[in-house]
Amino acid sequence: MLDSMCDLVDALASKLVTYRRDFHRYAESGWLEFRTASLVARRLADLGFDVHVGRDVMCDTARMGVPDQATLDAAWERAVTQSGDSAYLEALKGGFTGVVGVLKSGDGPTVGLRFDMDALNIQESIAETHRPAREGFASVNDGMAHACGHDGHAALGLGVAEVLMALRDAFRGTVKLIFQPAEEGVRGAKSMVEAGVVDDVDVLLGLHLYGRWNPGEIECARSNFLATSKFDALIKGEPAHAGGDPQAGKNALLAATTAVLNLYAIPRHREGATRINVGKLIAGEGRNVICPEARLVIETRGATTELNDYMVERATRVLTSAAAMYDCTVDIIAMGSAPLAESDKTLGERVEAIALSMEGFSLHPPESGGGSEDYTYMMCRVQERGGMATHIGLGAGIGAGGHHTATFDFDERALVSAVKLLVAVTVDVLQNAPSVSHESQALV
Amino acid sequence: MLDSMCDLVDALASKLVTYRRDFHRYAESGWLEFRTASLVARRLADLGFDVHVGRDVMCDTARMGVPDQATLDAAWERAVTQSGDSAYLEALKGGFTGVVGVLKSGDGPTVGLRFDMDALNIQESIAETHRPAREGFASVNDGMAHACGHDGHAALGLGVAEVLMALRDAFRGTVKLIFQPAEEGVRGAKSMVEAGVVDDVDVLLGLHLYGRWNPGEIECARSNFLATSKFDALIKGEPAHAGGDPQAGKNALLAATTAVLNLYAIPRHREGATRINVGKLIAGEGRNVICPEARLVIETRGATTELNDYMVERATRVLTSAAAMYDCTVDIIAMGSAPLAESDKTLGERVEAIALSMEGFSLHPPESGGGSEDYTYMMCRVQERGGMATHIGLGAGIGAGGHHTATFDFDERALVSAVKLLVAVTVDVLQNAPSVSHESQALV
Amino acid sequence: MLDSMCDLVDALASKLVTYRRDFHRYAESGWLEFRTASLVARRLADLGFDVHVGRDVMCDTARMGVPDQATLDAAWERAVTQSGDSAYLEALKGGFTGVVGVLKSGDGPTVGLRFDMDALNIQESIAETHRPAREGFASVNDGMAHACGHDGHAALGLGVAEVLMALRDAFRGTVKLIFQPAEEGVRGAKSMVEAGVVDDVDVLLGLHLYGRWNPGEIECARSNFLATSKFDALIKGEPAHAGGDPQAGKNALLAATTAVLNLYAIPRHREGATRINVGKLIAGEGRNVICPEARLVIETRGATTELNDYMVERATRVLTSAAAMYDCTVDIIAMGSAPLAESDKTLGERVEAIALSMEGFSLHPPESGGGSEDYTYMMCRVQERGGMATHIGLGAGIGAGGHHTATFDFDERALVSAVKLLVAVTVDVLQNAPSVSHESQALV
Amino acid sequence: MLDSMCDLVDALASKLVTYRRDFHRYAESGWLEFRTASLVARRLADLGFDVHVGRDVMCDTARMGVPDQATLDAAWERAVTQSGDSAYLEALKGGFTGVVGVLKSGDGPTVGLRFDMDALNIQESIAETHRPAREGFASVNDGMAHACGHDGHAALGLGVAEVLMALRDAFRGTVKLIFQPAEEGVRGAKSMVEAGVVDDVDVLLGLHLYGRWNPGEIECARSNFLATSKFDALIKGEPAHAGGDPQAGKNALLAATTAVLNLYAIPRHREGATRINVGKLIAGEGRNVICPEARLVIETRGATTELNDYMVERATRVLTSAAAMYDCTVDIIAMGSAPLAESDKTLGERVEAIALSMEGFSLHPPESGGGSEDYTYMMCRVQERGGMATHIGLGAGIGAGGHHTATFDFDERALVSAVKLLVAVTVDVLQNAPSVSHESQALV
Repeated sequence: MLDSMCDLVDALASKLVTYRRDFHRYAESGWLEFRTASLVARRLADLGFDVHVGRDVMCDTARMGVPDQATLDAAWERAVTQSGDSAYLEALKGGFTGVVGVLKSGDGPTVGLRFDMDALNIQESIAETHRPAREGFASVNDGMAHACGHDGHAALGLGVAEVLMALRDAFRGTVKLIFQPAEEGVRGAKSMVEAGVVDDVDVLLGLHLYGRWNPGEIECARSNFLATSKFDALIKGEPAHAGGDPQAGKNALLAATTAVLNLYAIPRHREGATRINVGKLIAGEGRNVICPEARLVIETRGATTELNDYMVERATRVLTSAAAMYDCTVDIIAMGSAPLAESDKTLGERVEAIALSMEGFSLHPPESGGGSEDYTYMMCRVQERGGMATHIGLGAGIGAGGHHTATFDFDERALVSAVKLLVAVTVDVLQNAPSVSHESQALV
Repeated sequence: MLDSMCDLVDALASKLVTYRRDFHRYAESGWLEFRTASLVARRLADLGFDVHVGRDVMCDTARMGVPDQATLDAAWERAVTQSGDSAYLEALKGGFTGVVGVLKSGDGPTVGLRFDMDALNIQESIAETHRPAREGFASVNDGMAHACGHDGHAALGLGVAEVLMALRDAFRGTVKLIFQPAEEGVRGAKSMVEAGVVDDVDVLLGLHLYGRWNPGEIECARSNFLATSKFDALIKGEPAHAGGDPQAGKNALLAATTAVLNLYAIPRHREGATRINVGKLIAGEGRNVICPEARLVIETRGATTELNDYMVERATRVLTSAAAMYDCTVDIIAMGSAPLAESDKTLGERVEAIALSMEGFSLHPPESGGGSEDYTYMMCRVQERGGMATHIGLGAGIGAGGHHTATFDFDERALVSAVKLLVAVTVDVLQNAPSVSHESQALV
Repeated sequence: MLDSMCDLVDALASKLVTYRRDFHRYAESGWLEFRTASLVARRLADLGFDVHVGRDVMCDTARMGVPDQATLDAAWERAVTQSGDSAYLEALKGGFTGVVGVLKSGDGPTVGLRFDMDALNIQESIAETHRPAREGFASVNDGMAHACGHDGHAALGLGVAEVLMALRDAFRGTVKLIFQPAEEGVRGAKSMVEAGVVDDVDVLLGLHLYGRWNPGEIECARSNFLATSKFDALIKGEPAHAGGDPQAGKNALLAATTAVLNLYAIPRHREGATRINVGKLIAGEGRNVICPEARLVIETRGATTELNDYMVERATRVLTSAAAMYDCTVDIIAMGSAPLAESDKTLGERVEAIALSMEGFSLHPPESGGGSEDYTYMMCRVQERGGMATHIGLGAGIGAGGHHTATFDFDERALVSAVKLLVAVTVDVLQNAPSVSHESQALV
Repeated sequence: MLDSMCDLVDALASKLVTYRRDFHRYAESGWLEFRTASLVARRLADLGFDVHVGRDVMCDTARMGVPDQATLDAAWERAVTQSGDSAYLEALKGGFTGVVGVLKSGDGPTVGLRFDMDALNIQESIAETHRPAREGFASVNDGMAHACGHDGHAALGLGVAEVLMALRDAFRGTVKLIFQPAEEGVRGAKSMVEAGVVDDVDVLLGLHLYGRWNPGEIECARSNFLATSKFDALIKGEPAHAGGDPQAGKNALLAATTAVLNLYAIPRHREGATRINVGKLIAGEGRNVICPEARLVIETRGATTELNDYMVERATRVLTSAAAMYDCTVDIIAMGSAPLAESDKTLGERVEAIALSMEGFSLHPPESGGGSEDYTYMMCRVQERGGMATHIGLGAGIGAGGHHTATFDFDERALVSAVKLLVAVTVDVLQNAPSVSHESQALV
């Protein structure tokens, strides 16, 4: 069974590369994945999946860090001209770019698989040494690039879909493929969770390609994500002429700079690691005008959700007081967040065993983290409801630039490996599970 | 003589309005006055003035706050398409947009008259209530508008040129009309002074229209300008991942915020008023990146040149130390400056007497200042070399928006008043002066 | 008359020196002038003045910056042992150290003369080069010294008392000698004003000796005092172990340092000069304890009372917000204040004329100020009620250390000059005034 | 053997209490343990130990945080009056208060035992509920109290001495008893290490009584100390009159406050926990004087020595730059430090086994730390030279106040337990060790 499955996947290799390069070429950043999502939906429907998109799988008010309307509209128009699928584009309008494909094959547990699709707001390199540029699939969309491998994730998701559909008679239960928007900035997962997308999932799988790991290296129960919150603080004061009326304004820049220093000075916590960063500060109108408005672009992290909450609470106090000091107002706008989550060890070990039973996989040495992933929202929900979840790392190093750089690239052979692993685990779960209900926590 | 001169000017009234509205419609901000300057030069040449433009009247290295090359090029190209005069445009390329017209009529002193030509980087109102919009001469150049009356200054300068040329047999001496770029931000005057443009001037006159004064109100020896320096500070550090490597970056934002607080905290000075403002702070790349670069947009002022120098020296120390605190570098870039200058009282009284002897002028009540003008560079140079200089304010209120707002406008009848006054003073000086050399300080 | 008065005063010369050196030797700082005040009261009573002391001439709640009870008690006990006058000491207990002596000689206006008595909290020099040390009258009270000449003021006040009593038949009206505590820190005058001490005064005179002016130089209508407020801010948080529980404390030091930077950053004001200083910051308990308490010792000044109020209001906002930022409380405690006041020119010119008609006086060249004096409270009250007031400076330079230094000293011959001038002006006012009521503003 | 040893110790119980209460009553804080050390030396000598004191066992320049000379002198004089031993006091003068006692019994390894002797600068409670007060052995030395149990450590050290001397024929090797000054503030150990005191030690034992643990609870290989540095920063500027000359001073308080905010803002480190605290800030002279001097009392910590070094390096940069910003100087004065050290597990297990084989001991549940101990200096030196070291915690809870509070006290029965354990381990090591040289790392 495993062998025949692997043959199936090997036969898809060039198709996976074609998908990936197509997504790469038309890179779309978070909430703007109109073309990508519409083509994913089209392909899932063509394969026979029951497809749900847009507001059906996303909670509007739980979306964070959505671009302004003009940006949404322009990106949607571009998707039309770049051959987005017209049957689905309408439903995605305004940044509702999530897609869910369901395949039910008799009674049995539900396995959810999550793939993210968004690119980054980065200008891709056009250097000859950068393969996408050299081979003609570098992003044609100005200021957007797939520099974190999500093009690969979307592509391999379609591969998983095709193979599981082909093997559907070999298992009993439901497969749920979840294509998520806006993972960058941890903005998108919450809206799909709030829409209930993973509420019926018994086993949840997520996978990320890593350009800095050797090809085939895996870690099957990744847990070293920090809880995080992303938010902007918009401080508003009043302008005045800096020479003629220096006492008259309400100086939003002084409020902002006071806040910045004190944000970094939030005390360390006895319970563990915390982080804060003010990544950007944009303030002011003119050289001779008391600054009337400042925007701070902030993130906090914590080794636990509680530690992150501590940072957010302290940061809020600092911002509020700094604004009050200059008689300014402050508006704190949530732009993204992700809780802490732990991969289930049992599930991770099962994935690891399956991987090591196949060719081409080896264990990646353990490493400390520091990053965040909003896939943790999905993990938490599944675990709260009695299911299991894990996050899998897969090496795809090719000596290119690092993640989030202009020259990121990865070894496309990892697409095949990833499809094999995800299909094998899914089938394993759905073949071996007793025919139980979700409530009985069948998989323990 | 005064009567016949006034008749001459009255006859020019509609022409002055035409000039003004043309300059207004094609507003060009500092260093980008390609069309305006080329048309001024053309008109002066047509009238018979000896015309000097570009590098002949400007010192390249003394120009401050010049836009980048792409902006210069684009504005120059636009001037070509907006009917700039091709005979002069080439010499103005790259932001050398000063023009000097000389009229010599026998031996005698030299009277210099200075006019500025630049618009502001403001988007002009398109409201029906705004006359330029309603009557079709609002700026067609996006993001640029004549919101400080320099369109009027350039127009009335051409009026002065035409009338003085007509009256040239009535006086002995030299008239020097100086059309200066980039007064906004006090960036342009120094380059013309350093090129020697006012070195031979015995009497220097400058005039500004004020929208908040009643029409016809004058102040003939304005001196309440603060000395000022405009500069940017560019702090450069190094980026790092804020979650994974918080200790690795060199945080330019922390350096910048430390600087801002301490800049405002520069102590008051026993000798008199000082000012400092950080009008803008632009910093950072991404939410999760330790901020690698920050730009502070700063100005200082002082009731004397020494007080302003004190502020600049202290500010420099603050910026240097704040950068060092975070192992960052800082580059302090001069963007403009103006020294303190005092109008000569004798000259001011002479101007006042002439004005009050004509119809339509009255004294404006004294007021305290707070603004700056780089005309003071020219005043200082003329006074250092034994000449006299004054700055004249002329009311032109029409109930429109204030200076530097989107709805600024002025009473165009002031154009006629201004031409009359400047011509009358010039002729008076050149008729009554003994035939003396500059060195003997004839006018005391 | 003037001549015979001068002879009278000359005869007192050695007595004045004796008084001064006695007060100097037993220097008592603000609110602790128990010995000094009791001896002043005794002498006035002995001369025949109607004497009022303690709570009769001071409003308790309007006293500012009073030391703690233990300090008050210890200083009072010391005064007992240092031969304070037991008849008066009881009434002065607790820091009610003001004395008023009244001499009524028929109907006529009331002339008030104000003298301050307090020393500074400074350790006096014991160097041989310092005359008080060399000649044995340096302060025996540890940490207290007359380093601003108030010993002289108290001494010459007694001289004025003696001479006016001798001359009482030569004038008609009332003399009111006001001996004020706690001028240093501008703490004492308000409490005497609030007790109504100057409410019936038609002409108020105050005089200060200046060690940096040549002997005999006078300025008769000093007005260049800045309005000022003195206050402490006590920020209270909560301690915690800095290693084990860094997140648990409420860091009063972080609140205080945030306040300090932002206090100095309070914007300049268009209307004129302002000042702020945090002279002391005392914070913390131990190296490894999150700081639970911080005291800031602050003063503001302004060229007008309104400008000073602006500084106080802004400072209060800064302190309140900074405390809130760290969940701390802040208590702002008034420690002193003085409004702006202008000497009456008419009165000043009269004083000047009288001075220049006597031997030994010359005009001091005008100078800019920056200091403060709470005598202004008395001036304001007198002027509000229709009277006139002036402050007189008198030179007494002797080449010693500056005011408020350990080696301050002055030329004791100034004591004689001062008595002559004050007596001459008082007699002049009381001889020449029509017999009018206060309400008719007799002296204009 | 163990039994007879225990009998010996039990017989000493009341003597141990007597020692402890005597040391407690005459509490002496760090570097001032003149009486305590002289009596320890006397007792060791009387028992037959070879005794070394003062500069023989301490490196002058490696002492940190030594009080000023006047304090040293006054404390020494007090020790004389409080029956310090005159034979030893002279050698201890100036704060050389370390004592080493050596007992050599044939060839064999060297076991070092370290005891600290210093009290804290705390005012002891005089409440009836506080046993030392109730029973008359509370500290008679104002502002000094044994609130951390070092009185017990010194006392039990004398007990260990007496028992080991009695048992000297039962083992072969050398016993080295090290009585260390100034453990509080981690100031004293380094100077004894630098003097070579532990260079020949093969096995090093240290023990601390813990008031918050149940009596008899032990942890035998404590390692959760943070590396730490204690230092003061003395910033010096220049004073000026805040009203008259605000621009003239060099404001040490502005430098200090800028430093404080930026010290707390030193970024977290990816490698683990760090700490910083500014426990005290003492700045300024007078309300109206620009602050000329500020002292910051600082400590850093790190989960490793490297992390602590990182904090110190960053702090130094912040302090230097902040001082430079205000043209001030800064002097950074080391006041204490301790590196990270790990107890040897093998040795710890051996201690644990011995303890559990005796009556009255049980294991304390593991706990996280946050504190520091300069015993780590000794541990590191011994381990670097091939020896082994461990730190033992022993419970002595009695429901009194916590460590470093005014009501700290402990269960004196712990003195007996501690002596038994330390003697048992020492004898075990010296009986069972092969007769080896230090270089061969005999104890592994």
